Formats: sequence, structure tokens, C-alpha cells
Amino acid sequence: MEKVNLGVIGVGRIGRLHARNLKYQVPGAKVLAVADIFEESARQVASQLEIPVAEKDYRALLENKDIDAVAICSSTDTHAQIICEAAETGKHIFCEKPVALDMGKIDQAINAVKKAGVKLQVGFNRRFDPSFKKAKDLVTKGTIGTPHLVRITSRDPEPPPISYVKVSGGIFLDMMIHDFDMSRYLLDQEVVELVAVGSCLVDPVIGEAGDIDTAIVTLKYEGGAWGTIDNSRKAVYGYDQRIEIFGSEGCVIVGNPRPTEVIINSAKDTISDKPLYFFIERYQDSYLAEMNEFIKCIQENKEPPVGGFDGKISVQMGYAAKESLNKGNFIKLSI
Amino acid sequence: MEKVNLGVIGVGRIGRLHARNLKYQVPGAKVLAVADIFEESARQVASQLEIPVAEKDYRALLENKDIDAVAICSSTDTHAQIICEAAETGKHIFCEKPVALDMGKIDQAINAVKKAGVKLQVGFNRRFDPSFKKAKDLVTKGTIGTPHLVRITSRDPEPPPISYVKVSGGIFLDMMIHDFDMSRYLLDQEVVELVAVGSCLVDPVIGEAGDIDTAIVTLKYEGGAWGTIDNSRKAVYGYDQRIEIFGSEGCVIVGNPRPTEVIINSAKDTISDKPLYFFIERYQDSYLAEMNEFIKCIQENKEPPVGGFDGKISVQMGYAAKESLNKGNFIKLSI
Amino acid sequence: MEKVNLGVIGVGRIGRLHARNLKYQVPGAKVLAVADIFEESARQVASQLEIPVAEKDYRALLENKDIDAVAICSSTDTHAQIICEAAETGKHIFCEKPVALDMGKIDQAINAVKKAGVKLQVGFNRRFDPSFKKAKDLVTKGTIGTPHLVRITSRDPEPPPISYVKVSGGIFLDMMIHDFDMSRYLLDQEVVELVAVGSCLVDPVIGEAGDIDTAIVTLKYEGGAWGTIDNSRKAVYGYDQRIEIFGSEGCVIVGNPRPTEVIINSAKDTISDKPLYFFIERYQDSYLAEMNEFIKCIQENKEPPVGGFDGKISVQMGYAAKESLNKGNFIKLSI
Amino acid sequence: MEKVNLGVIGVGRIGRLHARNLKYQVPGAKVLAVADIFEESARQVASQLEIPVAEKDYRALLENKDIDAVAICSSTDTHAQIICEAAETGKHIFCEKPVALDMGKIDQAINAVKKAGVKLQVGFNRRFDPSFKKAKDLVTKGTIGTPHLVRITSRDPEPPPISYVKVSGGIFLDMMIHDFDMSRYLLDQEVVELVAVGSCLVDPVIGEAGDIDTAIVTLKYEGGAWGTIDNSRKAVYGYDQRIEIFGSEGCVIVGNPRPTEVIINSAKDTISDKPLYFFIERYQDSYLAEMNEFIKCIQENKEPPVGGFDGKISVQMGYAAKESLNKGNFIKLSI
Repeated sequence: MEKVNLGVIGVGRIGRLHARNLKYQVPGAKVLAVADIFEESARQVASQLEIPVAEKDYRALLENKDIDAVAICSSTDTHAQIICEAAETGKHIFCEKPVALDMGKIDQAINAVKKAGVKLQVGFNRRFDPSFKKAKDLVTKGTIGTPHLVRITSRDPEPPPISYVKVSGGIFLDMMIHDFDMSRYLLDQEVVELVAVGSCLVDPVIGEAGDIDTAIVTLKYEGGAWGTIDNSRKAVYGYDQRIEIFGSEGCVIVGNPRPTEVIINSAKDTISDKPLYFFIERYQDSYLAEMNEFIKCIQENKEPPVGGFDGKISVQMGYAAKESLNKGNFIKLSI
Repeated sequence: MEKVNLGVIGVGRIGRLHARNLKYQVPGAKVLAVADIFEESARQVASQLEIPVAEKDYRALLENKDIDAVAICSSTDTHAQIICEAAETGKHIFCEKPVALDMGKIDQAINAVKKAGVKLQVGFNRRFDPSFKKAKDLVTKGTIGTPHLVRITSRDPEPPPISYVKVSGGIFLDMMIHDFDMSRYLLDQEVVELVAVGSCLVDPVIGEAGDIDTAIVTLKYEGGAWGTIDNSRKAVYGYDQRIEIFGSEGCVIVGNPRPTEVIINSAKDTISDKPLYFFIERYQDSYLAEMNEFIKCIQENKEPPVGGFDGKISVQMGYAAKESLNKGNFIKLSI
Repeated sequence: MEKVNLGVIGVGRIGRLHARNLKYQVPGAKVLAVADIFEESARQVASQLEIPVAEKDYRALLENKDIDAVAICSSTDTHAQIICEAAETGKHIFCEKPVALDMGKIDQAINAVKKAGVKLQVGFNRRFDPSFKKAKDLVTKGTIGTPHLVRITSRDPEPPPISYVKVSGGIFLDMMIHDFDMSRYLLDQEVVELVAVGSCLVDPVIGEAGDIDTAIVTLKYEGGAWGTIDNSRKAVYGYDQRIEIFGSEGCVIVGNPRPTEVIINSAKDTISDKPLYFFIERYQDSYLAEMNEFIKCIQENKEPPVGGFDGKISVQMGYAAKESLNKGNFIKLSI
Repeated sequence: MEKVNLGVIGVGRIGRLHARNLKYQVPGAKVLAVADIFEESARQVASQLEIPVAEKDYRALLENKDIDAVAICSSTDTHAQIICEAAETGKHIFCEKPVALDMGKIDQAINAVKKAGVKLQVGFNRRFDPSFKKAKDLVTKGTIGTPHLVRITSRDPEPPPISYVKVSGGIFLDMMIHDFDMSRYLLDQEVVELVAVGSCLVDPVIGEAGDIDTAIVTLKYEGGAWGTIDNSRKAVYGYDQRIEIFGSEGCVIVGNPRPTEVIINSAKDTISDKPLYFFIERYQDSYLAEMNEFIKCIQENKEPPVGGFDGKISVQMGYAAKESLNKGNFIKLSI
């Protein structure tokens, strides 16, 4: 199968990670160019990874006829616009989440993709985590029977900078959005109603910025099952990412991986490692797997497993959770 | 210290368990008599455990001057009445949960106990489970800092008989009542508001009896922390009783004990035991510990750690959860 | 089935434990009398456990026609003699390990039991530990195919008093004897050859008393499998009792149970309980199970699962290990 | 720091793995050329990894002035000769284990390296496994006090081809050699004496080829501690690589990592993943870490942490184990 030629747009932390993976560990991909509004960053990454072209303006990549697909890793507020332009130039698109915070822009992006007939994969990388994927596959296979309860725990090792909190859309849109997507993914069902609680317990500065740092959302699935998601912006012991699906025939539980398998029996306790520090460490494999999948979908002309619709629903759920928190009641989702 | 002379009222499954523990494993107790409306049961238990007296009417025990305390293990609808009578005759009282389903009767019982100046301990045995007790003690000691999130999972291996479901008051009063008590115990804080969801997913017969079998309740603590409790009437893998308390400095998690420590590495999987079957197996130690504590409180003239007020609050929380489920909104608790 | 009337000879720590179990938790047994050369001890135990008779001389128990069986829990040097006398008076016999340190005396005891046609069960309680028993049953069922390797770890939390070390026969006879029995039990095979290494690493005082405190024995089974046993007299983290049986179709591993299921996620580590402290805590269930089995064997006229022959072989293995250590080579066992 | 220019000699499975790592994941390295006696293999690897030069004869790499170092991944019988030639041309050397099966050749290689003043690192990759490294570091830091016992388990998922068994030198030289190195690494001590047992239990064809497939070696360390290593050529559940170091102040245990963190609670069992399949999966990180270390040692002019002496001792230990098995007694090691 022929290699897919890629351009990477935005080479901040996550863009560099994708560029490196695409360059060295995705056999089906060839990175032709990178772009970043900080031209110097683009140049550095290109030089370090031996990528031939570095641009300041992403449009140069869209105009490049040799490029088949782009990975959009720029700031959230640029995603929808770049998706539209990339679609118009016939590029397949991988876009980091969220697609946009504005529902109208999301619809525009989805429509542009549809019209152009290109692929769009949204960066919900956790779906590609080997443990979560195995859990989902077991549910699909019927190993636990009919699902009754879903439980998702998602806690960050530390809060993001306040500057980010102010523009991110808040905990439901910048953090729980991943868990909303996970909740849909695990059961392959839509959520029809939810209720949110939460407050600022970690750091009052977050509250002053208009956000909360601790939240629980309870979900109702279209198939009748119930779910809960809990989020905290600060787990001192590291990144805490666990799920549980309980059903009529059993229960699947996914715990946190740890850096080593070392156990110390001391005179006082039995001691093992704490969880991996954060998403870069924990989701390393999933970032690679999602890119392999994206390339494969282009090569085999298949629909990416997580597309624009998924990107939209997760944002809708985020807004519903915000509304529920504000109004203090249940919110129905109309999808 | 002198032995406490006891009478056991009601010798069904849990009454027999307490009688046996008191007879053989609580050094401070001496069982003088048992009573049961099925006189033959009382006789059998007395004979088997070498207890001198077996009665049909519990009043005979209350009139017995040698008896210092009674353990009330009869059916729920008799608890409040027997507490009142026992208090009047000056007996200390251990009573199985719930004290009553009627809030007025609970208040009468509490008042009778108060007036008589006797001890009343309510049978929330899980507080005495070594794992849960250690978790609570760690929270109290500040090991996890300020609590932010509490998670309680409580799933039975199979539903009770439908005849019981019809009179039990429903899942929030016959099952989650234990978890409501646990939620207050773990943080030593009251719950000020809650919201319940749930439905009948396990067995439609339970729904026809007017109850649900799957439920999630979200709690707000007076100190600002949030909690969730999930219940299912049927976990095919056995009794699933886990808790988790997450705070500013860490997280305490309690898993399920298993019958053996055997692990099998097979060509297919790694296999270990499923959890213990049900409460008799899982809470064996806690039943013994609560009785030792009750006897100690009498001997040392201390207030029992779980009394009438605790018995009342847990029932109130059960009613609040029912109301929340029916109305579809948050319910404030006024304590 | 009729109750078996018992006398307990020797009420030191282990004798009291058996007396209490027999009195309260072995439904088929009735303890008629206890004896101890410290008459006061016998009286105290009898009074505490409501046992009618307390004697200074065990012969009084042997002469008591109502007594069907005795549990010999006196000091090791008295075991063989009491077995012989008890057998002559037709009593069934439970005897703590080891039967004797003198092979001739062991043979005499075995012959006396054989001649009298009474039951003899030797106190290798670990065979009745639920985890080890499950492991052995899995091996018997063929779950791991043909056994190739056996690994037994057995480490005490602290060394015994030096006074005991001086008369116990040394680590191979006072400590590893349990593991020798376990090695035979797990595969239901005899050991045909062994080689021992070891030295004094824990405390030089043990070396001065003529013993070692750290030892490894490698075993060859008659069926071709190989085994290792490691012993240490001091594991600061508690009683470490693990086994592993590896075979052509898999591996069974038994780890250490812990007092609680509590896990703490702290900013530094993940922390769980250390193992149970020592044999009283760890083997609580096995002490009860061996007595239930002994009583059942009498009631159903079955041969006890661990008898005089087992008691003899384990001592032989202990002497072979001593010889191997002294000579620095392999020792064949002739059974 | 300047990049180290490398040539890779031998591009079979392990050579390709190193070439790929050096090319893409070792920032300090630049792969200039590969060589393989199967020239087509060299060409394929070069093309796939975008390496400029592919040669049939490794001597072309040695003559290339731009190349600073070589990684020798050819068949064992060529290692010593290539080391000598590479040293003479002033190349730093990474060589897969074992250096040679002939002690004389090992000495020649070590001398050639010494004379030339180049670096030599031997491919004992397991020293770079994050779990084993952490265990060793804990021992070095004194976390477990003075070591008393070391236990190494090393079992392959399946035997190598019989053609390999016939020329490999046997289980002690082709398999346990890794564990001999690990035993020295963990305590940073030499082994002074050992005794081996073993036989053919897995497959009689291995026995017909003159080898065994199941072995246990007991070790005495110069510092007084004792160790055991057990090997099996076939563990149906996958690659089983565990270690344990027990000392005066505690015990460090390293278990097997598993592919996912998924646990299934079924009506029958609790099920988790089996261990990773084999060394490629299990030791992925260690292969990368050893190469990073090698490059760093060249760049910083440091002695590699595992060199010619280590390569020699492990082979000596293999021959001592063979001799012990043949003679049936203890063998002293003179180092």
C-alpha cells in the first residue's frame, strides 16, 4: 500500500509528539512538512526530525499537492477553520479535540468534510489505549452481558495554568470531554440525560476564574444503563484514569498502569509504584495507535472510528453538564 | 470486669450468628436466654449453643432481672416496639438495622432509650469491617488531607425474595441504608443534599413489586465533598463491597477480600478467586467486632459508636433518595 | 453422628488454641478434660472454656473411659511416649509435630498406633490452609499438567528464643519440617534426593548455639520434578509463606494474605498492608480445619490425611538436610 | 554533544531491532551503515530504515573512517573475531551476548579492546529493564539492608529450535547466562560457588540433542548471601521473568508486566492478562535503554556499565553449572 504524505499543523507539545510518531513509528506515513505560527518552532522540529519543509503558514501545506493529509494540532480556536480549509483542498484530516467550542463552527466543519468527501478523525486518543480498547471489546463481545453501570474516574496530577482555564470552556469542556467520549465509546450507546454536581475544592483561584475543579456527572444511556464520571484537577499521586463496566454477566475493571513491577516489603508496609505521571506517559501507546488507525483508514478508504459526529456530541455533553450544574437539575440531550 | 448477661431476641439467620458469637467469641458476654416467636427455633438454638433458657415471648427476657442487655434480631417491624419495652425495663440494647421504617416510631424508640438512660447500638456492622475501619481511621488521621470525593460500591450476589422486596421499603431502605451509614461514617460528616437515579435492570419482577434493582445516588457533604453510591441487586461474581475516599493529599481504596490467595497462570489467562459470596462470609469479622464493642460500651459505660441518631439519619436518607427518584430532582436533607 | 469426646494434653499456646477451637467451633467434638504438668494452667483453661475436668497428669485422661481421643500438645520430647500410652488405652490421637526427634521413638509410636488400631493425625496444619489446599487440589486435578518445579518460601517474622534453638534440632527440624511436609503434600510424591546450603546471617547468637538461620534446600521428586525451599528466621515484614508449582500446562502461585484490603495512593507511593504477623494469625483457619478433619475421620472411621508415616518422613528429610549441609553434597533419601 | 556514527553488523531479528532503535529513538546516534552476510537482508533493512549504506562484509564498516562504533549482532561464533578486528580499527563496540563460548577467545577479545582503548558494552539488556534496575538501585541504597537471599525465575514461552540447542552450548550458556549476569548485577557481588540440578522434562528431543530444559542453580555470593535461579524452556503462560532479593531490612520483588490492566469479574473467576509473550515484548524498553547508555558512554568517555569482564564471568558461570550438573557436586568459581 502506498505511503500517506502528511503535513503537521501546529508543533506544540502534542504536535511534536504526533510528528515524531508519524515520522518514526507509523510505517504507512511520510511527513513532508510541518507548520507553526512560531516559525522557529516549525524549523526546529523539522530539523530535529529530518522533515524537509517547515512553514509559518499552514496554508502552504494545504496548497502542497504532494500532501494527502494534515494533522491539526494548533490551538482549539483555529481547529474548525483549518478543517474547513483543509477539506476544501481535499486533504484528509486528523484534528485534536475539541473540534471547536462553538456548536455552529463544529457543524460547519462537519459539513465541509462531508461535502469534500475527505476523512476526518478526531483525537480522542483514549479509545486507542490498549486497556480501554480491550474493555470495550469485551463489552461488545457480550462478556459482561447487558451493561447496567459504567464508572469513569479521571483525575489529573495537577491543574492546568489559570490562563488556560480562562479560555478552555471549563472542566466539562477541557477535561471531562474525554470521559464523555469514553462513556459513549464503551457501550456504543448515546447518553440521553445527565445531571452534574461539582465545586471548587482544589484551588480557589480556579473558582475565581469561573470554573470548578471537582465534578461528578451521572448519565443515563439510551439502552437504560447508568453511568458516573468523576473528575478532579489534582490527584497528588499522579494521573488516575480508571473505568468499570458492570453488567448482567460480570464486570470489567481497568486500573492504572505503573512504571515498574517492583514491590517492596518493608517493616512497615508493602509499597509499589504510584501511577504514571500524566497523559504523555500514560497514553503513549494510544497516540501511536490512533495515528496508525488514521493512516490505515486513508489507505483502505474506511471511515475513521472516531469522527466529526463524535467530536460534536462530546462538546454537546459538556454544555449539557454546564447547564445542569448551573440550573441544579437533569438535562436531556437531544441528538 | 464483670460479664454482661444477654438475651437474644429473634434467632433467625442473623440472630443465631450473634448468639453464637456472643456465646463463644465475646469474652465479656454471657448469653442467658434466647427468644423467638417460633418457639421451636428458640429451643434448637438454645440446645445447640448450650444456652440455659429458650422462650417464645421476648417479654420473658425483659422481665428476667439477671439479663443486662438484649440483642434485637427479630423482624424490622418489631424493632421499635421492643426497643421501647426493653428500655423501660432498663436493658441495654443492641438492635439490628433499620430501627424502623416509620420515622415517628424511630423517634419514640430514641426517646425511650434516652429517658431510660440505657445504651443503644444499631447494627451497622460494616463500620467494624477491618478494611473499612482502617480506611476511616486513615481519613480521620488526615492521611489523604481534605476529602473531596467518596465512592461506595455495594452490589449483592442476588436479589432477596420478592416477598421481602414488597415489605422492605425498597432498595434505598433495605440495601443502600448500609451505604448511607457508611458515607457518613467515612467522613464523620452529614450529607446535606442528594440526587438519585435508578431503574429495574436485573429482574422485571422487582419492578412489578414496585421497586428498582439498580441505583446511583450522588451526595453532597456538609464540608463540601461529593459522593456517589452505586447499588445493584445482582452481581454474578459475588458480593461487591468497595469504597474509595479521594482527598487533597491522596486516595484510600478498599477492595474486595477473596477466599484464597491462589493465582493460576494458564495458557489463556491469569486467574484468581472471585470475591466472597455474601455478607455472612464477607462481614464475619465485623459482626464479631460490633458485639465486642457493644459489650465494652456497657462495661465501660461509654456511648456506643453507632446509636439511635445514626439509625434515624440513614432511614431519612433512604426516604430522601426515594423522593429524589420519584421527583427527578435534588433533595435537601434537614438534620 | 455422635460427638467425639476429647481430652487435650498440654495447654500452652497451641494447646489452648486447639482446646478453644474444639470447644466452640468443631461441632462434632466435646472437650471433657485438659491436662498440663502446670496444673494451674490446666485449671485456668478449663475454667475459662467451661471444660469440666482439669488434671496435672495426662494419664488421668487416658484412664477416663468417656474420652475417645486426645490432642497431644505437650513438649516435643513427650510426644512419642504419650502416643504409645494413648494408643494402648485405645484413644485416637492428634499429635502436634514433630512426633519425635529420635527416629526409633517415631517408629515405636507408629507401631503402637498400628497395633492398637487407633487413628493418628499429625499436626501439619498448613495442609489445611485454604490457599495451599486449593493449590494442591488444582495440581491433583491436572490444572497445571505434569509438575516440573516446586518453590516454597517460608520465613518467620523473628527467630525463636535461643533456649528453644538449642533443643529444637535446628532449622531443618523445627522450621523447614513444615516445608518438607508441604513439598510432599503438594505433589503427592516422595522426595528422593536433596542438597542443602545455608549459614548464619540473621544473628550470630544462633550460630553460637550451633544452628543456622538462613537455608535453601533443593529437592528431587520421585516423578522427576525439582523443588526448592528457602527459609529465613527473620523477615522484618512478617510471616512470609508462599508456594509455587510450575508444570507443563501452567503455574499455581499462592501469595501471602494481608489483614485488610486497604490501598493508599499517596504522593510518594502506593501502599498496602504487610503480611499477617505470624502463624497464629496466618494459619487460624487451618488449625480449625485440621481438627474438624480429625474428628470426621474418627466419626467416619477413615484414615487421617496426614499420619505417622508423614510425621516420620518429614523428620527424615530434616536429618538428610542436616547431613547434606555438613558434608557439602547431595543426600539420597531411602523411604 | 556530537552524534555517534554507527554501523550495525548482523541484521537478524535482534540486529534489526537495534538498528531501528538507534535510527529513531536514540537521539545521540546516527546509523551510517549496516552489514549482513545475507546481503539482501542488509539492503532491505537499509532501505526500510533509510540508512545510506548496506554491505555484505562487515569489514567495509570497520574500514569506514566516519563510523565511530559498531553494534555486533551477528551469530555468536563470530563475536570474538569481530570484536578484535573492530578494536584494531579503533571502533567502540556494542556486542550481543555471549562474547564467545570459548574462554580463550573471550580473553583475546577483552585484551584487544583493552589494548585499543575502545569501549566495549556487552548486550545484557535485562540490566536496563526499568523494574530490575529499580530493584537493584533499592538494594544499592540499602532499602532492604544486607542481602540474604536472591531468587531469579526465568522461563521461556517455548524452546528454541533444536538446531539452535545443538550449537548454543546448552541451557546454562544460552539461557541461564542472562540470569547469571542478573545475579551478579543485583548484589554487585561475585558468586563464589554453585550447584546445579536439572533434567529434560519439557521435550525429550532436547535431551536427545544433549541438553536439558529444566534447571535450578543454587549460588553462594562472596558476601555470604545465597541465591537460586530456576529456568524452564517452556512456560505455557508466556515469558516468566521475576526476581526477589530478601535482606535484613525487607524484600524487593519484581513481577511480570502484563499487556493491559483489564480485570474481568466473571461468575466463575477473576481474570487478568497473562504476561507478555517473550523478550521482544518484555524487554522492549531495556533494548532502547542499553543503546542510549552505550552512546552516552562514548560521548562522555565513560566505561560502559556492563563490559567484557561481565561477559566473561557469565560464561564461566555457565561452564561451572554444566560441570556441577555432570559431576553432581558443588563447583567453586575462581575469578
